[in-house]
Amino acid sequence: MKRREFVGGLAVAAGVAACSKADPEQKTVAAQAGETFEWSCVTSWPPKFPGLGMAVENLAERLERASAGRLKIKVYGGGELVPPFEVFDAVSRGAVEMGHDASYYHRGKVDAAQFFTAIPFGMNYMELNAWIHYGGGLELWRELYEPFNLMPFLCGNTGVQMGGWFNKQINSIDDIKGLKMRIPGLGGEVLRRAGGTPIILPGSEIFTSLQTGAIDATEWVGPYNDVSFGLHKAATYYYYPGWQETGPGLECIINREAWDSLPADLQALVEITCQSITLDMAAEYSHGNANSLQQLMADPNIDIRPFPAEVLQHLKIIAREIVEEMAANDPAAAKISKPYYEYLEKMEANTRISEQAYLETRTS
Amino acid sequence: MKRREFVGGLAVAAGVAACSKADPEQKTVAAQAGETFEWSCVTSWPPKFPGLGMAVENLAERLERASAGRLKIKVYGGGELVPPFEVFDAVSRGAVEMGHDASYYHRGKVDAAQFFTAIPFGMNYMELNAWIHYGGGLELWRELYEPFNLMPFLCGNTGVQMGGWFNKQINSIDDIKGLKMRIPGLGGEVLRRAGGTPIILPGSEIFTSLQTGAIDATEWVGPYNDVSFGLHKAATYYYYPGWQETGPGLECIINREAWDSLPADLQALVEITCQSITLDMAAEYSHGNANSLQQLMADPNIDIRPFPAEVLQHLKIIAREIVEEMAANDPAAAKISKPYYEYLEKMEANTRISEQAYLETRTS
Repeated sequence: MKRREFVGGLAVAAGVAACSKADPEQKTVAAQAGETFEWSCVTSWPPKFPGLGMAVENLAERLERASAGRLKIKVYGGGELVPPFEVFDAVSRGAVEMGHDASYYHRGKVDAAQFFTAIPFGMNYMELNAWIHYGGGLELWRELYEPFNLMPFLCGNTGVQMGGWFNKQINSIDDIKGLKMRIPGLGGEVLRRAGGTPIILPGSEIFTSLQTGAIDATEWVGPYNDVSFGLHKAATYYYYPGWQETGPGLECIINREAWDSLPADLQALVEITCQSITLDMAAEYSHGNANSLQQLMADPNIDIRPFPAEVLQHLKIIAREIVEEMAANDPAAAKISKPYYEYLEKMEANTRISEQAYLETRTS
Repeated sequence: MKRREFVGGLAVAAGVAACSKADPEQKTVAAQAGETFEWSCVTSWPPKFPGLGMAVENLAERLERASAGRLKIKVYGGGELVPPFEVFDAVSRGAVEMGHDASYYHRGKVDAAQFFTAIPFGMNYMELNAWIHYGGGLELWRELYEPFNLMPFLCGNTGVQMGGWFNKQINSIDDIKGLKMRIPGLGGEVLRRAGGTPIILPGSEIFTSLQTGAIDATEWVGPYNDVSFGLHKAATYYYYPGWQETGPGLECIINREAWDSLPADLQALVEITCQSITLDMAAEYSHGNANSLQQLMADPNIDIRPFPAEVLQHLKIIAREIVEEMAANDPAAAKISKPYYEYLEKMEANTRISEQAYLETRTS
């Protein structure tokens, strides 16, 4: 503490010039002297999209306000500066300093990254937070991204999503056979192995495809985002729960050289603010989902219903097989898969007698 | 943004002297110039107590680090500067700048404050976060504390607690009758009306009272804290879920004049950091509870079991009656009770088809 007091006093007295590549002590001096960092942040979201897009706007606003303008982030919507799925590459090569997206978009390039967003039938919001911040998850994530010159931070979570909008009833696993459903990633792989046809569509084409019958079903996020997309006007059955994304975490990624150029206080501010955004975004989704669900429950044309338990159990077994195969083919995935599932198993026992047991008293 | 750039530049050039009562523009200048605030924070917790006490240590550490030492908080354990339950008064009268405790400790003085920690059978962690940050809860809280010269911030959450340690089985509501249980607050009132005898004991006396049979049962927090207290060595039955505290929020309270003296950037930092602590503390509890539960599950002398559903339903009805009576007798409680329960009802519908439905697929 003595050193910091001294450095602080020095800065006040001398107004020392900024020095972004300074040693730690000089960095603190730079911080005090008000060096300004102006960064660009590319994202995978439509600008200011409810939830996903607002989280990164809030991140930028908070960083600027709490740094008194010393860290300014200009946020770009998906496609404004780079395409939505090229955020990882753009930040990795240093074209921009920061990105906000979901790590499972890097499937095919860094398969193991999917554990840090969502694995079908995986961790929920609370369990992912515990794993990342206390269970060793963040250390594995940083090691995975190190070769790409990136520092990852957990920054947002939608909470448990919905199973999606269907124009066909799912009464047994046979009803999955031949089902044309817009569902990306590992969830799509699970659907394929269950006999369905996963289809990849950009967000802008989902509504029309569902309305015209080009697809039978689509998952998107949950009531908050789904209603704003109008999906309730193109399908009848709204299935729950969202087994494919059970508390997906978003990521803020920072180019390593940009990160290293920040003084220690701004580095701390970024870490703290990302964590605050994870809470805040989940709160926004809970609030927005509850409001939109009220609207849907009052709509006589919408049938909100659970997947049959045997369908979920069947999909869960397939999901685990697919993840095990991924781990068998990729040492990086194997290194994360084992601790992930061990941690999940330990957390499940605790969640069962705490959160789950309490929620069940409300419906019994 | 232009104004901030100008002010930032001015600060660097001139190293303007600190001025804690300045207007907003001068405040930003002060911020840049590195004025240091040294605050005291009194708490209700034993120093560095796992979870509750670590959260406020983490708060202080983060604020100092992210402010480059401009906001230093010295944390005092309960009783070190003021008694554990006099935190509210000490901060209110300005004896210290900050406090960390639970708002339901102010029962008797500000009954309505209990809504912001926990009401029996009330909101869970996610629902409380949504209500406080998006549902109007924070505005009600600030209005309630305004006459006490205090600014409240949600700052921590243990998650759903356990029902407690019992040396008698609870097989029906009749088993509550005559039960001597250490359980404070509204939970204690519920127990009394169900025929039990609630007993108030400081933490230091719980273990011996349970071991000697002076009490039949005690609630404390959850596996993480309970095991470190040794409660598993003094009782056989460990009941779940903790109906009395279903996601209790902790509070950081700041004396109004101290708050007003902070420049805008440090005010923002406090708000952001408190929100980060709410996530971080819940993550610490999830992690610690899961580890301690493993230990308890491996202990042949411990019987971990659920309360019978009919007991919980009975207690839930009593709890609602007690809160309704509190609201009938106290206009401040009435003003918060109505929106609280309306929000809870709306959230329950959403939680049921998202978080609860997903968790049930894991145990079906």
